[in-house]
Amino acid sequence: MSRFLSGRYAELVPYVPGEQPKDNKYIKLNTNESPFPPSPKAVAAGREALEKLNLYSDPSCYALIRAVSELYGVSVECVICSNGSDEVLSWAFAAFCCEGRPAVFPDVTYGFYPVFAAQNGVPYKIVPLKEDFSVDTGEMKKEKGTLFIANPNAPTGIALKADVIEEIVRADPERIVVVDEAYVDFGAESVVSLVLKYENLLVTQTFSKSRSMAGARLGLGFASPALIRDLETIRCSINPYNVGTVAQAMGIGALSDNEYMLDNCREICENRAYTVSALSALGFEMTDSSANFIFVRHPDIGGEELYQKLREKGILVRHFSRPDRIKDYNRITVGSIDQMKALVKAAAEIL
Amino acid sequence: MSRFLSGRYAELVPYVPGEQPKDNKYIKLNTNESPFPPSPKAVAAGREALEKLNLYSDPSCYALIRAVSELYGVSVECVICSNGSDEVLSWAFAAFCCEGRPAVFPDVTYGFYPVFAAQNGVPYKIVPLKEDFSVDTGEMKKEKGTLFIANPNAPTGIALKADVIEEIVRADPERIVVVDEAYVDFGAESVVSLVLKYENLLVTQTFSKSRSMAGARLGLGFASPALIRDLETIRCSINPYNVGTVAQAMGIGALSDNEYMLDNCREICENRAYTVSALSALGFEMTDSSANFIFVRHPDIGGEELYQKLREKGILVRHFSRPDRIKDYNRITVGSIDQMKALVKAAAEIL
Repeated sequence: MSRFLSGRYAELVPYVPGEQPKDNKYIKLNTNESPFPPSPKAVAAGREALEKLNLYSDPSCYALIRAVSELYGVSVECVICSNGSDEVLSWAFAAFCCEGRPAVFPDVTYGFYPVFAAQNGVPYKIVPLKEDFSVDTGEMKKEKGTLFIANPNAPTGIALKADVIEEIVRADPERIVVVDEAYVDFGAESVVSLVLKYENLLVTQTFSKSRSMAGARLGLGFASPALIRDLETIRCSINPYNVGTVAQAMGIGALSDNEYMLDNCREICENRAYTVSALSALGFEMTDSSANFIFVRHPDIGGEELYQKLREKGILVRHFSRPDRIKDYNRITVGSIDQMKALVKAAAEIL
Repeated sequence: MSRFLSGRYAELVPYVPGEQPKDNKYIKLNTNESPFPPSPKAVAAGREALEKLNLYSDPSCYALIRAVSELYGVSVECVICSNGSDEVLSWAFAAFCCEGRPAVFPDVTYGFYPVFAAQNGVPYKIVPLKEDFSVDTGEMKKEKGTLFIANPNAPTGIALKADVIEEIVRADPERIVVVDEAYVDFGAESVVSLVLKYENLLVTQTFSKSRSMAGARLGLGFASPALIRDLETIRCSINPYNVGTVAQAMGIGALSDNEYMLDNCREICENRAYTVSALSALGFEMTDSSANFIFVRHPDIGGEELYQKLREKGILVRHFSRPDRIKDYNRITVGSIDQMKALVKAAAEIL
């Protein structure tokens, strides 16, 4: 840090996202991207938008929010759009956490949560996952702070049932529950429709995974109109034009082609079943994933070593050295069937 | 606000950008957009990027930063990319202001500055413009806080000379000076090259105005490597993928076609000269603008009334009711010559 940096950021350690290599020599299974291109309808809408970029994007995202509202069956007042779902998560830490109301999340979850807390200068509290890596809902329910629950959780892929989440939301109407559904389309149950029923629920989703638009940067927040207004206050005090015209147009295009997303998710689920079965046959152990990634370890090789050896063979997966109890695991994106076959072949050679 | 919103935002009043009407029935001279489409090279680069959006954008913006570095003659360590220049300005308020080091800016300037300060929970101090609406550099130089100087200033359009800014920067190496050059290409002197010489200077620019890419969302910060590292810490603690793939590709395309931008700026300057002359002939008074807008009033009609009557005639300009001493002014974007002729005709009819 320079001598000029505000003291409040002296301890701030930024999030480090998975590597985006500049060349194309890797089979990239490290950032949970889709192996499929965006919907042709999204691409066509984006192409049409390109020539009009001399004008600002609609800061209210009106047409996109209307399309979201129609597909998800919630009113337009219950939706906010963000530049990727990280942005709406960051706003949620800002808006809904403070001294005396810490952010609460598991030890093993999206690694950005503690960074969002630090950047926004709010406290946080860790509730460790249970021994089997599932979220300890009993312990979470005892907390008075704002709960952040990734469902399915990352990097474990383990999902909670919608009724379990609803019970947590209902248990205390004065406590906000944020459910991060980045991976929900790959086999978990969404609680988006519950925002009509509970004022204290915020659900975030992203176009980066199931809708194949990671590079377009588009995220969504669903909540009661009261919470959405709070988030809008934050959004418009930082960057009211946060979502560009191309992302808005492509988002509308993608939503108009929902079947494309559903088909892709079905294929990813089949590829996941293949990979789970083939890696199990090689002696790998893994959690029960409802996401587009699997979280695996092998009794005969350390996590770091497997990561390095796969990398030498041109396959990039994600290794987390902390917390300690996951250091022997790797998170592997479920991609195309060819990518999965290459992964299984490489793993067999390494063992 | 809901009962859940953090107390620190209880007083937060978001910035309200100029209207983006949903229909096309207005001649839109209210948000200083370019009347020209983005460079064909930018559009072609954007089109090519669309199909690859299933992968994340490069979080380091490496290729774009290299292109910026080559065109502007600064090293890659001196550049940061943002989702529009509002974003880098927001980071600057976060990083470089704190208790005891307030943000300092004029009473009449970009209306977002006090909102950035409030959102980031940092104090600010106002140094009024002089009677003639020029920045009071003598008073600014007495301040110990972090100075924010829009050059040319908005909504006045009045520019400071580069040597005047350099003198302010040099006067106190322990004080950061942020120069917001959103409109610099329309006739002011840039101080970007001074970041090589002064560690305490941050210059921001945008692709939204002279480069016709408002809807693509792309801004730049130029500073010493030490300041850029601080801003990177903030950026990567909020949204490391803040700039999407299309914006990065289009940015590179636009920079490769710098002549297109320069030609467009020349045309805007000609249209500005025409408009200044024609409106002066109608009795309008205006500041000496070096930007793609003019700031005008007429002794016979109030600012609000002129704004309303132009609107009734299908021409949208920007009216600011506060501070009081600009309430009789309107800020009018300099667009195409046809748009300017329509404006002059409408103004003549109204008077």
